[in-house]
Amino acid sequence: MDEENIILGIDPGSTVTGYGLIRRIGRGYELIDYGAVRPKSKSAIDQRFLHIFDALENLFATHKISALSVETQYVHKNPQSAITLGMARGMALLAAARAGVPVFEYTPSKAKKAVTGNGNASKAQVVEMTSLLLKLKKPPTPEDAADALALAMCHAHYHKPIRKKG
Amino acid sequence: MDEENIILGIDPGSTVTGYGLIRRIGRGYELIDYGAVRPKSKSAIDQRFLHIFDALENLFATHKISALSVETQYVHKNPQSAITLGMARGMALLAAARAGVPVFEYTPSKAKKAVTGNGNASKAQVVEMTSLLLKLKKPPTPEDAADALALAMCHAHYHKPIRKKG
Repeated sequence: MDEENIILGIDPGSTVTGYGLIRRIGRGYELIDYGAVRPKSKSAIDQRFLHIFDALENLFATHKISALSVETQYVHKNPQSAITLGMARGMALLAAARAGVPVFEYTPSKAKKAVTGNGNASKAQVVEMTSLLLKLKKPPTPEDAADALALAMCHAHYHKPIRKKG
Repeated sequence: MDEENIILGIDPGSTVTGYGLIRRIGRGYELIDYGAVRPKSKSAIDQRFLHIFDALENLFATHKISALSVETQYVHKNPQSAITLGMARGMALLAAARAGVPVFEYTPSKAKKAVTGNGNASKAQVVEMTSLLLKLKKPPTPEDAADALALAMCHAHYHKPIRKKG
């Protein structure tokens, strides 16, 4: 069994953090799990990020994850929301660092292209293709989870493991 | 001994994270420690934030901190640096949440006013007054540590503990 097979994608956010976990099989993929972390909106800000961090750390503790795939820092027009996004993003990077899992960054357009063939694809297209490529019975929700799955597949597509010669 | 006496101020940043730890004594303060966390600039981004987080978590483990004082989310003009600041800020909030320490936020102008009497004081003034109020032999450096000490004093000034009647 290849050690570089389980890839986690995370689409961080303070309200919804989507995650998607896939296994690379040859040139294809297989879904392991996907979902979203949603801290209570009434919680204090530090408690919200603790909730996100604990949920992500739990994913790293539960699965033998070989790589974390995240978007490159997205340039927000609103600096206030950029700080909040940064805090959520920090939780993902810290959870990976503590688990000793390397982090890979891809632009949103690269992730879209990896699953739809089009770097400017709509969110609906990403959801549709994610569902198709992973042979899901229903489209993944929320969109944040579909984006996370697309990031995981993007990594599987662009980052080929080095195979040892026998 | 009052349980609400040890206050940590943090001025987070991905390059330099300043911290300042004070003890409230009556209406005054006493320095416990100050300094700065500086991850290696050549490290991978997740390793840099792990470095910051570990250093801050160590402060919470070493001292009986009753409150964390941080700036309210500062609106950066550059969203890219706002995301990076957010990630560093997230490390501070997470370390506090994991230690069960409540987080208090103050605007930069309130922190400046608390130590200089002027919400628009210069950085040099903040350094000067921080040194004076805490009776330091030399001005605190870097400025990030002085800012962190000002935040801690700001909390001591504006957030009076409720004293139990004997």
